[in-house]
Amino acid sequence: MTIQDLASGCKKAAIFMAALSADVKNKALSEIVAALYNHQDIIIKANQKDLEQARGENLDPPLLKRLKFDADKIKEACQGLESLIALEDPVNDTQKALELDTGLELYKVSRPIGVIGVIFESRPDALVQIASLCLKSGNAVLLKGGSEAAGTNAVLARIISDATMAAQLPLGWLGLLETREDVADMLCLDHYIDLIIPRGSNAFVRHIMDNTVIPVLGHADGICHLYIDKFADHDMAIELAVDGKCQYVAVCNATETILVHEIVASQILPPLKAALEKQNVEIRGCKKACGLIDVKQATKEDWQTEYLDYIVSIKVAASMSEALEHINTYGSGHTDVIVTNQKERAVSFMDLADTADAFWNCSSRFSDGFRFGLGAEVGISTNKIHARGPVGLEGLMIYQWRLMGKGHKVADYAGQNARSFSHKPLGKPFQ
Amino acid sequence: MTIQDLASGCKKAAIFMAALSADVKNKALSEIVAALYNHQDIIIKANQKDLEQARGENLDPPLLKRLKFDADKIKEACQGLESLIALEDPVNDTQKALELDTGLELYKVSRPIGVIGVIFESRPDALVQIASLCLKSGNAVLLKGGSEAAGTNAVLARIISDATMAAQLPLGWLGLLETREDVADMLCLDHYIDLIIPRGSNAFVRHIMDNTVIPVLGHADGICHLYIDKFADHDMAIELAVDGKCQYVAVCNATETILVHEIVASQILPPLKAALEKQNVEIRGCKKACGLIDVKQATKEDWQTEYLDYIVSIKVAASMSEALEHINTYGSGHTDVIVTNQKERAVSFMDLADTADAFWNCSSRFSDGFRFGLGAEVGISTNKIHARGPVGLEGLMIYQWRLMGKGHKVADYAGQNARSFSHKPLGKPFQ
Repeated sequence: MTIQDLASGCKKAAIFMAALSADVKNKALSEIVAALYNHQDIIIKANQKDLEQARGENLDPPLLKRLKFDADKIKEACQGLESLIALEDPVNDTQKALELDTGLELYKVSRPIGVIGVIFESRPDALVQIASLCLKSGNAVLLKGGSEAAGTNAVLARIISDATMAAQLPLGWLGLLETREDVADMLCLDHYIDLIIPRGSNAFVRHIMDNTVIPVLGHADGICHLYIDKFADHDMAIELAVDGKCQYVAVCNATETILVHEIVASQILPPLKAALEKQNVEIRGCKKACGLIDVKQATKEDWQTEYLDYIVSIKVAASMSEALEHINTYGSGHTDVIVTNQKERAVSFMDLADTADAFWNCSSRFSDGFRFGLGAEVGISTNKIHARGPVGLEGLMIYQWRLMGKGHKVADYAGQNARSFSHKPLGKPFQ
Repeated sequence: MTIQDLASGCKKAAIFMAALSADVKNKALSEIVAALYNHQDIIIKANQKDLEQARGENLDPPLLKRLKFDADKIKEACQGLESLIALEDPVNDTQKALELDTGLELYKVSRPIGVIGVIFESRPDALVQIASLCLKSGNAVLLKGGSEAAGTNAVLARIISDATMAAQLPLGWLGLLETREDVADMLCLDHYIDLIIPRGSNAFVRHIMDNTVIPVLGHADGICHLYIDKFADHDMAIELAVDGKCQYVAVCNATETILVHEIVASQILPPLKAALEKQNVEIRGCKKACGLIDVKQATKEDWQTEYLDYIVSIKVAASMSEALEHINTYGSGHTDVIVTNQKERAVSFMDLADTADAFWNCSSRFSDGFRFGLGAEVGISTNKIHARGPVGLEGLMIYQWRLMGKGHKVADYAGQNARSFSHKPLGKPFQ
């Protein structure tokens, strides 16, 4: 089967996925839970083979850890499925209801997008999570996982497909791609695929974004800033800098650059340096910062680097405007924080920062679907359209306009005795 | 100035556009009204020069009519601006408000997208309309109009820029592109431009969609269907077919293909043919249709053609499923209508039709921003993400997450004595 055949089948299945009731979808998710438990041995065996090969290829221990899919991980994945079942059905939610004229009712109703292409890293639990998010939202999905997990992924995809077919889901709603060439083929299939969600390294996501006309949801970089205003509480600022940088360095919402207002720089920089160095953070400062504390000098490269490590860059800014210009130039529109005691300055910062998540007096690390209470996280987006910041199931949704008439013709609303529109809110959902 | 310089300046201006108050924006719109009236002579003179040249190049009369921008058209444009001033500010609308924990408040707030690139046909009124929609929504805009209107557009863009600068709008918020090469350059500037809106012929819009990684909002084709179910009221069905096809043939929401359930085809086709031919509509039928009425036979080409003319194709479908398969194969996801007396069949049709506007017992011609009560229309979209169907100002908006804390750190929500999140609706807007 070519990738085009697979995608074409997926598009056909998407039509029927979109029409499934919440009950059928939740039943299918339950079937997946049962099937994962029932086939634990096969899954673990396939995963051990992947692990063996990975060890033979001297994969890094953190990568091996992520690749591992044992009984505990299966249990975790099933718990994730159970909480997804408990979520409300995101399909057919009425977003607007308007009477256009007597007996002519317009509804804006949430609907699945269609076919989602997801390319993800070598974590087999990601396959279960992504497939189930697409199912719950009534979408069909084409999946491509990391090659190291190919054996585990093949087994998981087959188990999920079989389990959901038994629950009356349409054949082909879940397709598995196997090679890099398959991905290249997929990026050309804009006729069949409605949205691509790439997960992985910056370079990889950027590559996907630059090589397809299919809309892409995601983020390449996460260069997050913490701006310490001249009216900041110094202790709070230092604590937020340490939390943003050190609480977990390897993630996209970690703070990478700290901006300090010039007026308070000489007071804040020494204790900030001490606090960061206590956590073994290497500091790279702008010229002005280097004049106040003894740190390595930052280059332009530093301002545009997502370290994902115990390194931070510090810049002294002459004003909030200069800090914002730096953020809007070098930032990635992910998460940017201001520390200040003045609310109007915080709101002005939010208005002027071109960023998905604008925070005031809290850590950049809060930028996360779970912490935001989204129920399930599809990913984090730095897009300027559709969905921005942490994206829940609503990121997999679009809407349909539904107009219900009684034989209404447009000719009656034109010319001499034209009827006019009432445009009156209906205050009731589509049903 | 290169297009890159223009776009880079536009992006800088977009930051400040996004922070403008409703008052400043409405004041700027009023200044445009005054300036258009004050400079009527200059505008009309420039337009007459464009018209003269167009006549010299033997442009079609309908094109000349659209190109004309006289005192009446200026008045119309100004009336459009006045009604835009009266609309609510779409910026900073609170879409969600959630307490994450005591003193840690999350808001989802509507925000402008940033830089919009709009390529439009040879109608100078389109320039005024698009520029003002972008202004009202706090976006910056790069415009490219039809080359026939180049002189008028240059004058209009200068008048609008000058008027809005006097009202404190940032320099460069409106940029005018002049050549086709400029457009090609613009399509590569994904670093500066957040959304492209192309208006014009199918081939043109398709060309834009295929040649940029910048998100595109719009529609290429408008192949709209009317499906007459076996449970349809025959008179209503025929009236809706005539209205959908004939009320205005040259528009994207006109009906191009009529599908008739086989069981009622022999009863409906003869009077349908008579009614359409009375309006001088040429009919092209599938084999089965040709067996029941004397019409020209349709080819595959017909099913995928947006006639925009007094021509319609008719297909007899063995079932609603077959009709839906035809719609989902050949349709453009614009507007598709079912005529039936059974509500559950109508809802099933809506669930299974992969289309922006799914209508029941009314004309496809209702698919329009004004008729839908959107206040202002940005365009009609067949996209599967961001905005679908008739798009109002909300199509020029995205949102920002705003988190307001009191020094909250993520470290406190991890480990042994982790605090938990309350995720409690706040029931108040961001302010």
